[in-house]
Amino acid sequence: MSERIWTAGLVVIGDEILSGRTQDKNVAQIALWLNVQGIRLSEVRVVPDVQERIVAAVNAIRTSYDYCFTTGGIGPTHDDITVDAIAAALGVPVVVHPQARAVLEKHYETRGGLTDARLRMARVPEGADLIVNRMSGAPGIRIGNILILAGVPSITAGMLDALTGTLEGGKPVVSGTIGCWVAESEIADLLRETEKAHEGVAIGSYPFFREGRTGANFVVRATDPALVQACIDDLTRRLEESGRAVMSGGI
Amino acid sequence: MSERIWTAGLVVIGDEILSGRTQDKNVAQIALWLNVQGIRLSEVRVVPDVQERIVAAVNAIRTSYDYCFTTGGIGPTHDDITVDAIAAALGVPVVVHPQARAVLEKHYETRGGLTDARLRMARVPEGADLIVNRMSGAPGIRIGNILILAGVPSITAGMLDALTGTLEGGKPVVSGTIGCWVAESEIADLLRETEKAHEGVAIGSYPFFREGRTGANFVVRATDPALVQACIDDLTRRLEESGRAVMSGGI
Repeated sequence: MSERIWTAGLVVIGDEILSGRTQDKNVAQIALWLNVQGIRLSEVRVVPDVQERIVAAVNAIRTSYDYCFTTGGIGPTHDDITVDAIAAALGVPVVVHPQARAVLEKHYETRGGLTDARLRMARVPEGADLIVNRMSGAPGIRIGNILILAGVPSITAGMLDALTGTLEGGKPVVSGTIGCWVAESEIADLLRETEKAHEGVAIGSYPFFREGRTGANFVVRATDPALVQACIDDLTRRLEESGRAVMSGGI
Repeated sequence: MSERIWTAGLVVIGDEILSGRTQDKNVAQIALWLNVQGIRLSEVRVVPDVQERIVAAVNAIRTSYDYCFTTGGIGPTHDDITVDAIAAALGVPVVVHPQARAVLEKHYETRGGLTDARLRMARVPEGADLIVNRMSGAPGIRIGNILILAGVPSITAGMLDALTGTLEGGKPVVSGTIGCWVAESEIADLLRETEKAHEGVAIGSYPFFREGRTGANFVVRATDPALVQACIDDLTRRLEESGRAVMSGGI
């Protein structure tokens, strides 16, 4: 039973995220999916649609973690430069992938045919494999430890589906949450001591303010479900002994 | 009239974002606010609650851009290590800021008093100034070109309000959007040519799929509103001449 922790970083490629125009949804979506694969999302970088910025981020992430995911910039228009940037990062040429070309030819057969612009979506860094995209034809791309996904969240989701079970990972991180109508500053010592008493467990404290009241959710994380449960039980007991009511599942 | 472009990077400090538990809202909020200040958000890094990771990201961002924003990790609990990490990044000690202490003493006067845990929120890297937080007492922190903000989006918003007009910036980026029920692959050449014909303008193409139909929004960005308008007019004309109906304001 290996205790190796598998890690991934994500490069979000998108002027639209950095301009504030679009609310990113891929970070949370990919993080949750990675958890199930037993891979921990360890870093995210959001960079603009500028080749040298993509190259620098991809090179930093792919050499620091087991996997490097990217989202965005794989469509047919002039601002879609992800494939060129990643080929440059790897020092390989861009080629048309025959299977991607065949998929696109079929997809566009009844939609006006495969134009030059559409053929752009069959371009991959040399040596790459495809990640199936049932939704819109244009595939994702896998090369080495790099996984190149779409930016539109519903299409990203389909590509994650296609990748499910194909990446090596470790034990998934398990988490449990309890909530309490308490200012976290009142129980900071209690939290710290509880975390210390349970090796291998991390407790996160997330305050909120609702209907004029202060509360916090406490999230307990570990790879061993029994450790999580023991820590949740202990934390619940300590909070209740200090006179607070605890809601399992958070507030 | 200076054409200097002012830039900022953002370090999001938060296990809760990387675990997928919490959907980040601060990237878009800060990006939109920065646009109004005439500052361009140029990079975001999301890192876990681990001191050396925060130090590395803050040092990379603060030396690459005019401003380095951080969100998260400034509360009273054991997982709030942002202040210590940034002090370490700058090589300065952590001290209790007398004004922050006074603010917290007043805030907690009727809420059980200023405990040791709460006093943690008055700790700053030596030499720092405070950013007012009307909502929950605990202030944000400003030191050099680093702006340390809360992670809870409503509190972040209050701190941005307090910062409005205090940062030097350039011309805000202006954008205009038009939408079209068209597959972007059909008009990729048209887009590229339009962008080329308008120097200083960037056109982003953002496809979507709704009610079984394919469409795209085209976002035109520049610092000169007249350039944006001229490009929007030209793009609209070109799309209409190619037989497409255009919706101003996007779809």
